[in-house]
Amino acid sequence: METSKSVKDIASFFRKLPSVGAKSAYRMAYAALSLPKTDLEAFEEVLKEAIQKVHRCPNCGLLIDSEDCPICDDPSRDKKTILVVSDSKDVYSIESTDSYKGIYFVLRGTLSPLNHRTPSTIGLDALVKRVKEEGIKEVIAMTNKDLEGETTALYIAKLFNGTGVKVTKPAQGLPSGAIIEYADPLTIGEAIRGRVVIGEEEKEGEK
Amino acid sequence: METSKSVKDIASFFRKLPSVGAKSAYRMAYAALSLPKTDLEAFEEVLKEAIQKVHRCPNCGLLIDSEDCPICDDPSRDKKTILVVSDSKDVYSIESTDSYKGIYFVLRGTLSPLNHRTPSTIGLDALVKRVKEEGIKEVIAMTNKDLEGETTALYIAKLFNGTGVKVTKPAQGLPSGAIIEYADPLTIGEAIRGRVVIGEEEKEGEK
Repeated sequence: METSKSVKDIASFFRKLPSVGAKSAYRMAYAALSLPKTDLEAFEEVLKEAIQKVHRCPNCGLLIDSEDCPICDDPSRDKKTILVVSDSKDVYSIESTDSYKGIYFVLRGTLSPLNHRTPSTIGLDALVKRVKEEGIKEVIAMTNKDLEGETTALYIAKLFNGTGVKVTKPAQGLPSGAIIEYADPLTIGEAIRGRVVIGEEEKEGEK
Repeated sequence: METSKSVKDIASFFRKLPSVGAKSAYRMAYAALSLPKTDLEAFEEVLKEAIQKVHRCPNCGLLIDSEDCPICDDPSRDKKTILVVSDSKDVYSIESTDSYKGIYFVLRGTLSPLNHRTPSTIGLDALVKRVKEEGIKEVIAMTNKDLEGETTALYIAKLFNGTGVKVTKPAQGLPSGAIIEYADPLTIGEAIRGRVVIGEEEKEGEK
């Protein structure tokens, strides 16, 4: 017996989402179709509206559904510091911490030549242009701490080499709540190399 | 900054699917909205069609999008044996093994009084009615091997007690490819209790 076409089609959409394998995609498709029709209809409405409204802010690349960008069009933000991330969701994660008041730049992923993601396709040309035109003083390269993310951060640092623009990256070390026993060796190494003075000692102890 | 409404709405739909937590739902919503518009539009079409077409077969409860049920309306199937599952996707899993030629009965989940899933709401009344009306000889209770699934299987056995209908359950034991060292104690116990003769020995060795 063939799986019904609707299930197949819905599963193949779910399959495009991150960390959804072939089996989960089918499980999710069956679950979706088992939901009350009203839920499905409401979702179709939501989707239709999103398709019409959601777009990337032409300045920062953030996925938004309003005409104004909540970041770029906010006059209270520091327009001389730009934080670069590889995905819109990172902006929302960072905003929820209330620890940053500058502007953002959302790349379309990280550099990955094998996946045809080059400096211009992920938006690095546009970043350089914006930094130059707007006289931005600091670029915070806040990509993921995996190989592609680190490569992208290093590439960004190189791009602004000698331009007088400061490129920084977030501190690396043990996460809040970390249990040393379970921390991975790379993190422990980074945490030790980047150790900071906590007592009354002179500043010479710092790296 | 507020997360955009479209993202929120889409995430709250994903949240209803199995094994999708709050964080994954947001990650998936962002990923969905980052897909090419054509993918999203195609998905909306698919969804619209599914909403119109997908329904449960009135006889067996299977989610189908065709007028005929590929099981109930297949004259080559053995109509005297019915296999009971708790979810449509199980039918497709079992069908893919080509090891069953009877008909099916899809419950709406397993018995769970705490979640308001009672014998009548999950469809056990309808099962009894169908078995009686169609003179079915064997009911295979193939629910999951967890507490709720086992409870439901036992309940089904009780329902047909003294009616002359045979209620069976699938064999339990070590799965194909199992490594004894990693098997859980319950499975090992079941496998030993259910051991079968593999040599030339007399049948008395069997349970």
